[in-house]
Amino acid sequence: MKSLLTHLECSKTGEHYDADVPQNLSRVGAPLLARYDLSRGPRSPRELAHKPGLWRYSALLPVRSPEFVRDLGEGGTPLFPADRLGEALGMPHLLIKEESVNPTGSFKARGMAVAVARAAELGIKSLAVGSAGNAGSALGAYAAALGLEAHIAMPKDTPASIVAECRSFGVDLALIDGLITDANAHVQKGIKELGWFDMATLREPYRLEGKKTMGYELFEQLDGHLPDVIVYPTGGGTGLIGMWKAFDEMEQLGWIGSQRPRMVSVQAAGCAPIVRAFEEGTEHAAPWENAHTSASGLRVPRAIADFLILDAVRKSGGCALAVTEEEMFAAWRQFCALTGLFCAPEGAATLAALQKLREQQLVGRDERVVLFNTGSGLKYLEAWAQASGT
Amino acid sequence: MKSLLTHLECSKTGEHYDADVPQNLSRVGAPLLARYDLSRGPRSPRELAHKPGLWRYSALLPVRSPEFVRDLGEGGTPLFPADRLGEALGMPHLLIKEESVNPTGSFKARGMAVAVARAAELGIKSLAVGSAGNAGSALGAYAAALGLEAHIAMPKDTPASIVAECRSFGVDLALIDGLITDANAHVQKGIKELGWFDMATLREPYRLEGKKTMGYELFEQLDGHLPDVIVYPTGGGTGLIGMWKAFDEMEQLGWIGSQRPRMVSVQAAGCAPIVRAFEEGTEHAAPWENAHTSASGLRVPRAIADFLILDAVRKSGGCALAVTEEEMFAAWRQFCALTGLFCAPEGAATLAALQKLREQQLVGRDERVVLFNTGSGLKYLEAWAQASGT
Repeated sequence: MKSLLTHLECSKTGEHYDADVPQNLSRVGAPLLARYDLSRGPRSPRELAHKPGLWRYSALLPVRSPEFVRDLGEGGTPLFPADRLGEALGMPHLLIKEESVNPTGSFKARGMAVAVARAAELGIKSLAVGSAGNAGSALGAYAAALGLEAHIAMPKDTPASIVAECRSFGVDLALIDGLITDANAHVQKGIKELGWFDMATLREPYRLEGKKTMGYELFEQLDGHLPDVIVYPTGGGTGLIGMWKAFDEMEQLGWIGSQRPRMVSVQAAGCAPIVRAFEEGTEHAAPWENAHTSASGLRVPRAIADFLILDAVRKSGGCALAVTEEEMFAAWRQFCALTGLFCAPEGAATLAALQKLREQQLVGRDERVVLFNTGSGLKYLEAWAQASGT
Repeated sequence: MKSLLTHLECSKTGEHYDADVPQNLSRVGAPLLARYDLSRGPRSPRELAHKPGLWRYSALLPVRSPEFVRDLGEGGTPLFPADRLGEALGMPHLLIKEESVNPTGSFKARGMAVAVARAAELGIKSLAVGSAGNAGSALGAYAAALGLEAHIAMPKDTPASIVAECRSFGVDLALIDGLITDANAHVQKGIKELGWFDMATLREPYRLEGKKTMGYELFEQLDGHLPDVIVYPTGGGTGLIGMWKAFDEMEQLGWIGSQRPRMVSVQAAGCAPIVRAFEEGTEHAAPWENAHTSASGLRVPRAIADFLILDAVRKSGGCALAVTEEEMFAAWRQFCALTGLFCAPEGAATLAALQKLREQQLVGRDERVVLFNTGSGLKYLEAWAQASGT
């Protein structure tokens, strides 16, 4: 089925923008959201393309022509019962959404698969991103598959495996003495002076579209239901916002009613701008000073779509909470040993958060809870050495 | 659909063995092969279970009860056209079977997913394997998921990422000063003295069954056809033998006729026992002395099923050939940069081999050739540093 994309819409003002030319932020500096003619969309998942992975949802994705798609196996990741972990927590319906089996070993592949294909379709040749790591290697992968230029900046303490992976794709890689915000600043210079296209999440509209497929998959994998609670590690928050958008689209498609899972945003105590804003009741999150955590994907001091994250969390009846490095490390060891999944520290953070939610009785024992593991532990060997004391 | 498993059969003598008790080698020291009542099997792939991954083939797998299956996302890996790599080689129909998106980042997950589930079903509690690396972490993963004991021995120069991954699963891990054959010897001691069960490939019958699903997937992904040539990196050779077995089963099921792809077995020049035996025309392969290659999965000086590998290669009209470290390294850089896939050196070896096959005109430009990438480059950072000169 062909893409039903109609236009882009400013997430602040609702103004419409042309979707068939390259776009970044709206006039007021807010993310643009892709809109579709959902009245012509599939009435049920049974009408979707019969193929594995996220291109099954191509009607609800922005890429108009399949010639720009390079399917490296993105999406279609397992949702499995965490039997032994569930027993340890006294939660019989605990589930894990396992994103590390995506290309490049992380959920970032979903967003970049779609955004790079769409960029190629719009004639863009030279793509750039500042990244905490995984978004960079995902951009590099799809750029290499399509023969596009990729310019990537990362903090110089990004894990060695991610740096090696990026380099293997032949990208232009800058290692920056600073955080992802500093890496972003480096990339902005190339964007202004050299005409690179900004692929930073939510500064371009289509990574969100790739990420939203996680929400569609949950619905299909639970046989037409949504879970009670989604526990999601939040850096830039694209996956959380994306799933929230998917649920709205599914309601418009007539697949679901107004019910929603409670969205729980998990951050590290050393970088928790969303948690602070949630607790203080503000619409936006002030940038976090001196951000530090070994979960590099959570080391995002300022998220451009902070207000969209906070809105989804609040409307869903969920919450935002932070976990310490010690809590995350202990959860990491337990997660791997009881699931057979060498998860990322960001995935481990969701387990640490769930333990707190249980203690505070914010989640019931019989609720169906989904923990998101966003990447492979193979990409965090330095942090794992700390966590495991080896 | 329930498993159609009927019995096990000695690969040398054809004698039958009971499949519903734990078994290792046959009376004459040869691998046992699982046999099914294929007369009751699916008449076409359309009759298979509608689910992603290798459990779709459950009728043709040995696990009788789903309660022992822990599906971490094994199988169902992409087969994608390598457009840019194909252009560089002048081969428009070049394909890559991408196994690194399996759990634990390698094709070994297929074999262990099935073998560990079957071991659990047969009441075995304590599993052991000597491994060049990836088989160990795959065993560790499924043992952790099921709560079984895993005893693993590996050469002490196994890549650090694989060692970390294994440890994360809480296994008993011994790092041995030597090769996989020495690691195997260590494990044999525990098998004799402590009652561990031997999970070495083809010394137990069911890892082969998991691996054979690669052959079924190729047929389905090529819309009911097989490729002309399969280029496969060969250590123990289980995948090659497994696909060959799958093709025979598919013929008995009435899915295909007697046509077969040419099977090309690729080894490293520093450890090429199968290549030597192929060239010398012998039935078995003599052990390789002083084996060395940075593709640790190819560092297998002696394969117990050497005669099955050689038989498949010869009957198929294929060949066995070796590539040097330099050829493999150059191919590795090219493979990653032109596909967006940070492949394993074993995967790179198949590209180096294809270049030779083209030079020798053993493969035609318009043939449909499948290169197997068996694992993620993230598990070979030390070797990549050498290959990339970083």
